[in-house]
Amino acid sequence: MTSIGIIGSEGRMGVALAAAIAEAGQQRLGIDKGGDVAALAADAGVLVDFSSPAALEATLDACVAAKTPIVIGTTGLEERHHWLIDEAAKDVAVLQTGNTSLGVTLLAHLVREAAARLGADWDIEVLEMHHRMKVDAPSGTALLLGQAAAEGRGISLDTCSERGRDGLTGARGHGKIGFASLRGGTVAGDHDVIFAGSEEMITLSHRAENRMIFARGAVRAALWLIHQPPGRYTMPEVLGL
Amino acid sequence: MTSIGIIGSEGRMGVALAAAIAEAGQQRLGIDKGGDVAALAADAGVLVDFSSPAALEATLDACVAAKTPIVIGTTGLEERHHWLIDEAAKDVAVLQTGNTSLGVTLLAHLVREAAARLGADWDIEVLEMHHRMKVDAPSGTALLLGQAAAEGRGISLDTCSERGRDGLTGARGHGKIGFASLRGGTVAGDHDVIFAGSEEMITLSHRAENRMIFARGAVRAALWLIHQPPGRYTMPEVLGL
Amino acid sequence: MTSIGIIGSEGRMGVALAAAIAEAGQQRLGIDKGGDVAALAADAGVLVDFSSPAALEATLDACVAAKTPIVIGTTGLEERHHWLIDEAAKDVAVLQTGNTSLGVTLLAHLVREAAARLGADWDIEVLEMHHRMKVDAPSGTALLLGQAAAEGRGISLDTCSERGRDGLTGARGHGKIGFASLRGGTVAGDHDVIFAGSEEMITLSHRAENRMIFARGAVRAALWLIHQPPGRYTMPEVLGL
Amino acid sequence: MTSIGIIGSEGRMGVALAAAIAEAGQQRLGIDKGGDVAALAADAGVLVDFSSPAALEATLDACVAAKTPIVIGTTGLEERHHWLIDEAAKDVAVLQTGNTSLGVTLLAHLVREAAARLGADWDIEVLEMHHRMKVDAPSGTALLLGQAAAEGRGISLDTCSERGRDGLTGARGHGKIGFASLRGGTVAGDHDVIFAGSEEMITLSHRAENRMIFARGAVRAALWLIHQPPGRYTMPEVLGL
Repeated sequence: MTSIGIIGSEGRMGVALAAAIAEAGQQRLGIDKGGDVAALAADAGVLVDFSSPAALEATLDACVAAKTPIVIGTTGLEERHHWLIDEAAKDVAVLQTGNTSLGVTLLAHLVREAAARLGADWDIEVLEMHHRMKVDAPSGTALLLGQAAAEGRGISLDTCSERGRDGLTGARGHGKIGFASLRGGTVAGDHDVIFAGSEEMITLSHRAENRMIFARGAVRAALWLIHQPPGRYTMPEVLGL
Repeated sequence: MTSIGIIGSEGRMGVALAAAIAEAGQQRLGIDKGGDVAALAADAGVLVDFSSPAALEATLDACVAAKTPIVIGTTGLEERHHWLIDEAAKDVAVLQTGNTSLGVTLLAHLVREAAARLGADWDIEVLEMHHRMKVDAPSGTALLLGQAAAEGRGISLDTCSERGRDGLTGARGHGKIGFASLRGGTVAGDHDVIFAGSEEMITLSHRAENRMIFARGAVRAALWLIHQPPGRYTMPEVLGL
Repeated sequence: MTSIGIIGSEGRMGVALAAAIAEAGQQRLGIDKGGDVAALAADAGVLVDFSSPAALEATLDACVAAKTPIVIGTTGLEERHHWLIDEAAKDVAVLQTGNTSLGVTLLAHLVREAAARLGADWDIEVLEMHHRMKVDAPSGTALLLGQAAAEGRGISLDTCSERGRDGLTGARGHGKIGFASLRGGTVAGDHDVIFAGSEEMITLSHRAENRMIFARGAVRAALWLIHQPPGRYTMPEVLGL
Repeated sequence: MTSIGIIGSEGRMGVALAAAIAEAGQQRLGIDKGGDVAALAADAGVLVDFSSPAALEATLDACVAAKTPIVIGTTGLEERHHWLIDEAAKDVAVLQTGNTSLGVTLLAHLVREAAARLGADWDIEVLEMHHRMKVDAPSGTALLLGQAAAEGRGISLDTCSERGRDGLTGARGHGKIGFASLRGGTVAGDHDVIFAGSEEMITLSHRAENRMIFARGAVRAALWLIHQPPGRYTMPEVLGL
């Protein structure tokens, strides 16, 4: 039985993580805001962090000091956070991802494959819908899927994404990857990647019923991560993709 | 047998209209760019116009002179075009619409009803997808459906629409009607109106396989319009909604 | 504050009802299997029953004796149960329904309207998806929606339904209403009513994220029912449809 | 320029094939029912056959005699037809498939991959919708997709398919692959393969706008087939999957 330490145990993801750890028959530790992260890192076999970027530096320091691997699902990371993660990964195993769901991880893999096979004559659009409280668009997962599509085509998402379409846009740019965001109700997260060709269309979709899937995927990633040497890892590696 | 005069008979909609007129067992007349609209209006029992706003004034003058009713499906109309239509409608029957499809007309009716019944706690989103060549977003039909939703709620679309969502948008505004546009391939026209409530969602959708449905609806409207006194009419009246 | 009595308070719907009653700021009473239904009917202002048909007769007797109205969401009712309900409705207000969701109730209303307007040249198909544990097909809600479509067309569902399509079926019968059922995962309940015409398609859909929507609708129905005279009522009446 | 011979040139697929051959800048030959297949096989570089199983034996004999490869898209083949194809494939290149669309071929590849990765805890359902005139269910393409899913899981479709669900079915069988068929309107062909897991769902979909995609894929296959040695080939090989 592995003891899994939750950073932010009182938040909504913290509660879901506790349920997922119980479901997996493992032991749970946890701290909330202001808790002693060094002690948690020392006690737990692996940490899972879905809290905020602000605390990330201290958390990574604690992991390095205790040689405890960590799964990071926190969103809103900036370049300097990624640099901190790269540094920590020299000493411990770190898995950072915008989406811990196993389904989304597989979907991204299928999107990469489809984009590679279909070529640029098939227009790619990424559509997502989330609950009315979500404050940013497109979702991190939509960007992750768009990134997978761009990789499949061997291009950079930065130079080909088409966002916030409105007004006199002109005809669609060849080779672009479009994004559109719907907001409403309590939707946990729907994502569609559309490949629109001449007179035919392929759509690859994922639908989350609630956040338990993110918690379950994070726990599965954590249990895999404790067996890895120091380094920076990704969700596809957890699934062996 | 009614003779139906097509303005723009060589265009893509002109060809579809010719097929729909034949399907309906009626007689077809037509002119293309530079043709004699006065002669067409004199010869035909009713006109159907899917050409361009530029020619509208001359076309309406011809209709008034010949007392010939007209169905106008031209897009991109400005305020002054609507004023011209209102003037012409004092003398002849005129039906102007952004979408002549019977299915879309019914859908707008259902959207109005749903919006009225569900109230502002159900978030409304309008999603549309069209082929890669379409140059404006959202589609005229998406706006027509958003307008129907706004009417159902007794609000003005101008003050509640949320378009081109991208970046740090903040939480969704209560009572807003959102729009999102997908572009790709050869899609003739998909529209979804989503009502997202607490833990449940109602979606009302329309999908066009090709432009024949617009031609068929225009012909049905034309055959109805010849029996009406002067005035300005709408598609729902054709269906008795 | 109204006291609402739950029959089957320990079941999954019982737990959801308790949450919905709390959400609505009302008082909750309840019994489980073997509990004293006569006492509950005497103490509560209104009952809500999602238990089993076996107990229905005793429950209705208790309601009549105590003059307590009742909302019945129990599935699997047979003809004799409906006869018992009709009898009880002479003395107390009774609302029996296959689906207490407000969204589904509105959807059925829209389906009836669409079916009436579109006519028999538009083929109607009802599709539903539910979790892997569901033991019957099509779902009660799918049948309720098919019934609404048949009413809209002025025909009987018994004579026009087409179910379990498999093998050499021949071309689709004109005027038929088809049903198809998907099963898998933990899906709480998706329903689509498709109207497929010539080159266009209208789809009216409902998606439930979890069973709270059924509990909330039942509570809303209960709070409406206590103000009604004896009689048998339906969900559309609760919404004023 | 390759000359492509169409068997059944006057049928609906024959007309579409003629358009696709012109689009690809190749030369077209063709015969209709009763035409001289031996002469066609002698004159053409490759044949494409979407006619009927009845004529298949004579067609294959002509191909073998003239050493002309053939793409067979005819549906309704029986075991003896497959045996005839195997025999002919000893002498000429033969590609037989239930669906010549490139999009469906890729989709089947993605389905196989997803089924292999997700494992049997994700329930698989195959849904298809076709126009009202289709006489059999499920569609050949739905079975092809179900077959790909079964292969991905390493099981036989014969022993795990669940079709025509209706009535008291009991809970869904673990590891089953379900099929459901919708019929209506003029739908050219929609297919969804659903993987339903715990609280999440992946759906892989294909939508055909019209039969041109089958004609285009058949022409692409034909142009590939002329470069192959004798043998029996499949669509994935054309795409290098």
